[in-house]
Amino acid sequence: MKLWENGNGVGVHEKVEEFTAGEDIRLDQQLVEWDAIGSMAHASMLNKIGIITHSELMDLKKALVDVVNLQEKGKFRIELKDEDVHTKIENYLTETLGNVGKKIHTGRSRNDQVMVDLRLYTKEKLLKIEKNLLTLCKEMARFADLHKDVPMPGYTHFQKAMPSSVGLWAMAYVESFLDDLKMLKTAYSINDQNPLGSAAGYGVPLDLDRDLTTKLLGFGSLQNNVLYVQNSRGKIESIVLSALMQIMLDLGKLSNDVILYSTDEFGFFKIGERFRTGSSIMPKKRNPDILELVRGKVNIITSSLNQVIGTIKTLPSGYQRDLQETKEPLIKSLGVTNNSLEMVVLAVRDISVSRERLIQSFSSGIFATDEAFKLVSQGIPFRDAYKHVDYNFQKYKKESPEEIIKKRKYKGTTGDLGILNIKKKIDREMAGSKAREREFKNVITKLMKA
Amino acid sequence: MKLWENGNGVGVHEKVEEFTAGEDIRLDQQLVEWDAIGSMAHASMLNKIGIITHSELMDLKKALVDVVNLQEKGKFRIELKDEDVHTKIENYLTETLGNVGKKIHTGRSRNDQVMVDLRLYTKEKLLKIEKNLLTLCKEMARFADLHKDVPMPGYTHFQKAMPSSVGLWAMAYVESFLDDLKMLKTAYSINDQNPLGSAAGYGVPLDLDRDLTTKLLGFGSLQNNVLYVQNSRGKIESIVLSALMQIMLDLGKLSNDVILYSTDEFGFFKIGERFRTGSSIMPKKRNPDILELVRGKVNIITSSLNQVIGTIKTLPSGYQRDLQETKEPLIKSLGVTNNSLEMVVLAVRDISVSRERLIQSFSSGIFATDEAFKLVSQGIPFRDAYKHVDYNFQKYKKESPEEIIKKRKYKGTTGDLGILNIKKKIDREMAGSKAREREFKNVITKLMKA
Amino acid sequence: MKLWENGNGVGVHEKVEEFTAGEDIRLDQQLVEWDAIGSMAHASMLNKIGIITHSELMDLKKALVDVVNLQEKGKFRIELKDEDVHTKIENYLTETLGNVGKKIHTGRSRNDQVMVDLRLYTKEKLLKIEKNLLTLCKEMARFADLHKDVPMPGYTHFQKAMPSSVGLWAMAYVESFLDDLKMLKTAYSINDQNPLGSAAGYGVPLDLDRDLTTKLLGFGSLQNNVLYVQNSRGKIESIVLSALMQIMLDLGKLSNDVILYSTDEFGFFKIGERFRTGSSIMPKKRNPDILELVRGKVNIITSSLNQVIGTIKTLPSGYQRDLQETKEPLIKSLGVTNNSLEMVVLAVRDISVSRERLIQSFSSGIFATDEAFKLVSQGIPFRDAYKHVDYNFQKYKKESPEEIIKKRKYKGTTGDLGILNIKKKIDREMAGSKAREREFKNVITKLMKA
Amino acid sequence: MKLWENGNGVGVHEKVEEFTAGEDIRLDQQLVEWDAIGSMAHASMLNKIGIITHSELMDLKKALVDVVNLQEKGKFRIELKDEDVHTKIENYLTETLGNVGKKIHTGRSRNDQVMVDLRLYTKEKLLKIEKNLLTLCKEMARFADLHKDVPMPGYTHFQKAMPSSVGLWAMAYVESFLDDLKMLKTAYSINDQNPLGSAAGYGVPLDLDRDLTTKLLGFGSLQNNVLYVQNSRGKIESIVLSALMQIMLDLGKLSNDVILYSTDEFGFFKIGERFRTGSSIMPKKRNPDILELVRGKVNIITSSLNQVIGTIKTLPSGYQRDLQETKEPLIKSLGVTNNSLEMVVLAVRDISVSRERLIQSFSSGIFATDEAFKLVSQGIPFRDAYKHVDYNFQKYKKESPEEIIKKRKYKGTTGDLGILNIKKKIDREMAGSKAREREFKNVITKLMKA
Repeated sequence: MKLWENGNGVGVHEKVEEFTAGEDIRLDQQLVEWDAIGSMAHASMLNKIGIITHSELMDLKKALVDVVNLQEKGKFRIELKDEDVHTKIENYLTETLGNVGKKIHTGRSRNDQVMVDLRLYTKEKLLKIEKNLLTLCKEMARFADLHKDVPMPGYTHFQKAMPSSVGLWAMAYVESFLDDLKMLKTAYSINDQNPLGSAAGYGVPLDLDRDLTTKLLGFGSLQNNVLYVQNSRGKIESIVLSALMQIMLDLGKLSNDVILYSTDEFGFFKIGERFRTGSSIMPKKRNPDILELVRGKVNIITSSLNQVIGTIKTLPSGYQRDLQETKEPLIKSLGVTNNSLEMVVLAVRDISVSRERLIQSFSSGIFATDEAFKLVSQGIPFRDAYKHVDYNFQKYKKESPEEIIKKRKYKGTTGDLGILNIKKKIDREMAGSKAREREFKNVITKLMKA
Repeated sequence: MKLWENGNGVGVHEKVEEFTAGEDIRLDQQLVEWDAIGSMAHASMLNKIGIITHSELMDLKKALVDVVNLQEKGKFRIELKDEDVHTKIENYLTETLGNVGKKIHTGRSRNDQVMVDLRLYTKEKLLKIEKNLLTLCKEMARFADLHKDVPMPGYTHFQKAMPSSVGLWAMAYVESFLDDLKMLKTAYSINDQNPLGSAAGYGVPLDLDRDLTTKLLGFGSLQNNVLYVQNSRGKIESIVLSALMQIMLDLGKLSNDVILYSTDEFGFFKIGERFRTGSSIMPKKRNPDILELVRGKVNIITSSLNQVIGTIKTLPSGYQRDLQETKEPLIKSLGVTNNSLEMVVLAVRDISVSRERLIQSFSSGIFATDEAFKLVSQGIPFRDAYKHVDYNFQKYKKESPEEIIKKRKYKGTTGDLGILNIKKKIDREMAGSKAREREFKNVITKLMKA
Repeated sequence: MKLWENGNGVGVHEKVEEFTAGEDIRLDQQLVEWDAIGSMAHASMLNKIGIITHSELMDLKKALVDVVNLQEKGKFRIELKDEDVHTKIENYLTETLGNVGKKIHTGRSRNDQVMVDLRLYTKEKLLKIEKNLLTLCKEMARFADLHKDVPMPGYTHFQKAMPSSVGLWAMAYVESFLDDLKMLKTAYSINDQNPLGSAAGYGVPLDLDRDLTTKLLGFGSLQNNVLYVQNSRGKIESIVLSALMQIMLDLGKLSNDVILYSTDEFGFFKIGERFRTGSSIMPKKRNPDILELVRGKVNIITSSLNQVIGTIKTLPSGYQRDLQETKEPLIKSLGVTNNSLEMVVLAVRDISVSRERLIQSFSSGIFATDEAFKLVSQGIPFRDAYKHVDYNFQKYKKESPEEIIKKRKYKGTTGDLGILNIKKKIDREMAGSKAREREFKNVITKLMKA
Repeated sequence: MKLWENGNGVGVHEKVEEFTAGEDIRLDQQLVEWDAIGSMAHASMLNKIGIITHSELMDLKKALVDVVNLQEKGKFRIELKDEDVHTKIENYLTETLGNVGKKIHTGRSRNDQVMVDLRLYTKEKLLKIEKNLLTLCKEMARFADLHKDVPMPGYTHFQKAMPSSVGLWAMAYVESFLDDLKMLKTAYSINDQNPLGSAAGYGVPLDLDRDLTTKLLGFGSLQNNVLYVQNSRGKIESIVLSALMQIMLDLGKLSNDVILYSTDEFGFFKIGERFRTGSSIMPKKRNPDILELVRGKVNIITSSLNQVIGTIKTLPSGYQRDLQETKEPLIKSLGVTNNSLEMVVLAVRDISVSRERLIQSFSSGIFATDEAFKLVSQGIPFRDAYKHVDYNFQKYKKESPEEIIKKRKYKGTTGDLGILNIKKKIDREMAGSKAREREFKNVITKLMKA
């Protein structure tokens, strides 16, 4: 029975149930654990303010821990008739515990409840994504260090332009990921606010203790204004998606580079066999499917952001049912980003570099700028040197690619990538990330035990 | 076993399978029937050009009909190890029929195969959508006809502006849907091209008879250039999505209007009880959830289009694995559009109109323009009349809303909506649509029988 | 003075003018001619229904022709104080003609007026785009015909896959453009509806003759429902943009292919010198900037569509000021698409093809599928043949690329591109397009003269 | 003359110039000052590493200060033949100073040069936006404080739901803006990295001192990896746009609320006359155009983000000309966001609140939840209380809205908005923001003087 049905009115049209809850139930299945945990904190608070007794609290907690265990065993399936995860659990509590179950919803609405679920779900996933992002940074930095002296043509306009190195190329991604990390941490902190107690956006006439639930659930802070809580539905999702998008854009670019550099025509890299698949019609063919899929999946995130933004744009203040449609893009994108990171970490470990092909590919045009700078060092104005080289290029002889990349010696160039310092930074960030994850796990464990 | 595995090489990484096929399998389950049907046509053609015997063809057809039947009973489940629907069916044929099964893939690739599946799948869904769109047109025209004399304030800038009617409002949607129909039919016709025989985009060294498969599968025409076939993957999806988007934008706008006009503040309409649901915290509350969800689901289509466009944009010619990611947005959007149309048809049937509240809401400002035109009819230049009314408005007395909407008598206004002609047009379109659907069903039935 | 100012009220805040009209005025400058022409038709109609005399009509027409002429000479500049093109012209008429000018706005609003302007503007631009699209088709078909026997590796997954030809590659684009043309013609016809007479979306209490203005302005049909006219603001823009998007996506893909095939690594094509530019730091470098910009400009169209859709989504029925923001994306996109088509036509004419590099690039893997089909023709099931080739590939000897592309002989393959028929189709379409353009010009000329 | 033209080759096609530089020049005009300032820092650095003499440096600085002054007077117009701002200034220096001018480009490319310009331009604009955002926070907090005891129906699903207050509504926006500020500051800090010295993405064979230019230009840090610098073109723009989008989404939502609450039907608010405009056809009408335009302009930002993301997605590493197309969406969006903030600040100051209409609008359903909680406080389980109220609602009597909003007393509800603390936070942020702006101005002033 729905939480709002009175049993003697006109029922909803038979197709309405499927339309309103259909897809949503599949998503809610992933929120069961978090809904139960949120309810534990809520029940503790209700006990503290005198709505339920200590013994009722103990009963509720035990039953909620059972829910978590059932879910882990795949035995807590939400079905269409259950409407959603919140109804399913409240009904379970009422069936198991009687009157106590009917008290659990005191002082909250499904509106703040689902937000607690999503914030905690998102928090756990963001911690995983952060760890995988840093693992990828380590992997790329290792790769860069290994190949820091391997020359590579530097391209602009898809044309060979100037001397570069495999190390420079790889470290460019590391630094980009570290900027992504800044976005990710901001999104993490904005998501890390406790929405519980906002009810349907206007609070309730009870003395709820929101600081207590903030502490019990390990939230970084309380999201104060109860209407803002509801207005931030979808908004905070869009902030999280903006951060994920940056990561995926980088993964897509990296994948694209590797696909390109691994073609027969370029031949700079070779993707490991375990990360290529074949054709149903062409014998002998092996394709970089995994990286193509990562590149393709970038669009899942960009379009998810598009969807969330589209949904929230100019909705009036307060909850509207449209907001339900922000759940799927969030959950899907967190999953896709995490999986893509894991795949790219594995794929990067298995890339081999062809120093030979890279050196062969240094055609004479690549050296033109260096020739101009030789003239500059003889006192000729750069623009004149440029023109001189442009006219007389055939006279110059090709240099050694290995030598020439050492001639760029200042910060950020092939000769001074700063790998060591960046590795240290990665380690520091990783330590911080793991500490936050540990702390979060401890809070949840404590809540489930107490 | 994958179609391309040779059995003695290095296998793919264990996580690769999940990453590359995971979600895709769930989607492929919906293509089983169409994949089998496409294979029937392909087999018939292989028989005609002498690759397989008549008896082999009969065996294949029988087995493929079995596949369709198994699928209908839910007994043809694709699993992760099956890779995709094509492999699953080819393996099934080989297991059932031996060598004959190994011949079915002659002269095609999974690339053209999946396109056949998707084109047929899309065609069937578009026919349903067309029918539901026309049903909604009929429903709205009926509603308009019923309420064509009920006055309604016409709004601009969310402000009461000029006299309007419920009929004018409703017929505006009918005409909009009929423009959507033009887009839908164009998309239908572009989708209705046979891709089979393009193989992986470069054909095969055999004398395939593509006109035969075009005829057997009931395609409107042959998609000629084999590379264009592959390049059109995602492109035609985006064209279909552009058409669906127009329908959903209209449904969203209609939903939004009805939600607004049904608020306590406006009170023009009342949504049927069977299309409203309740709150878990607020007794007595009933919400227009269904229409809010329709409004929210508009963004599924716009973001699906965004995703498909993002995926295909600037991919080089020829198939790339990224294109797999265009399957989900297409399938999801066809479903969402069809369901939303069905829901809105039902909801519209159940809207009641409050003539009383509508008439009450005619505040004096609404009449200002008509006052100005009275002066114009006395020979005063419009701009002077406008100013005169602006200054002397308090002197004018309010007219009858029912009378005033009759004073607009020319084409397209409250006094001449042209409902009858439009109804005839809807009927003609409906007849054409049903004829096309019947014809398509006949072709498929014939193919499965022969 | 604003059309709605009464001269004795509180003026708007000084920053409001800049905010509301700033950018819009720059756009309105491009609508001057069409606004004047729309006014001529409106005036003729007002004369027919007796609101203005024949001599007043003559005066108005003459003054409006003057406006067109002034605009052509760059002497009709709209400034911030003019608010918009409509006010500017009405004020000009009143200043020039006195009372007659004050009558021109009888029976219309700026709402339907701007829509007339935009529909006519769009129509003219779409006719140009259609012609340029067909010119590009001709150019590409000519290029394809010239190089139809030049072998080219066919790529999938960015990997050499099967034998293809320059002709197949080029004709794939021609057929794609011809599908784009279907979208373009649908968009053209939906845009070709007369909005005049809808006023602010609710008509006026006069007997306007909308069929007359439809005929005078050469519209294909009357857009009937006056509220639908207003609701279609932005909607029809989005339909036009959907069509332009398909063209630009193809231009982007074509540009990307050409950039790639012109790299040092591929070396298949060479872009003409007149379509490459240089670097400020690297002597000797020449870049395919034009094609890169075309590729980049695709995103102007996709984001313009995104903007228009975002603007109209779930706005309530009737005009809202937000809709002003759909003007820029439309005007910009029409311009960008037309210019990009012109540039690509020029660039394609100047591409040279390196038969030598193309033939060299046929590595042995390309022949694997053909080897398998040789076995198939000996009666071996395809799947066994595939495996056999996979194991024994080193034993086969490489064939002549020129010969092998002739072995694909059925419709749509390298051996049967159908160029001749397609060229005929292009010519037919071009003739139809030119006829429509001529007819439109005649109508406008007649209106200005009469 | 273009920087890369050698004077004796084939020129580019006459249409190429317009196509490649057309729109870009208009944008570059806004970068003149920053390009000159970037050049001053670059010249100082060239002097320090011995490429130019002190006297040459002094000449260059003087000429560059002249450029800034000319630009301020509108006398430094970039034209099509100038190609871009960088060429225009280099040519100006060479014309004015001879050989010294030809040296200015030593060790840089237009690629890093334009990035310096855009980073500094963006930095200045972000500082303004930050200040305006905080001003709006102050204004809204003041408004909230003033009306914190004015009751307002709280809506969910566009339906009256529970008791709320004008204060709660307004403070919800303040807290939302403060979350936006977090995003803005992250974007600011990622933008605040010095790209100079990366040249075309691969550095130069000279000992550039990048720490010096970082310091001279007041950048927060050095963007180290020279290839990452180029790869971050568009990426950092998209991060800035993500932050602006959050602000604009909030402004759009706020505008939408105010438009709605100011309708005749709601009547809660009244927008100041100076922020409404009139109709050309309807006397007496005044529309909330400014807020509608703000709502519409949200889509400029979302589509600009869409455009930038579309442009950079899967471009290969290194500069591509497509990236030029990221300039317009950035510059436009910074302007639109800043102007919208300014307009909303003004409009909010001029909103009046109708306590009477607000109190009248409290219909009985709003009190239902409170009735249920009265039963809860008597020990009845919430779910039973809910049902009891649902059945017996007609028996309860309506309470005073003013009293009922005081009954929510815990954090974040109508009775405890925490305005004072939030005001303090706003002041702290404002002080920090102003300090950063001052510091930036000082650095620039110092650079221009020295």
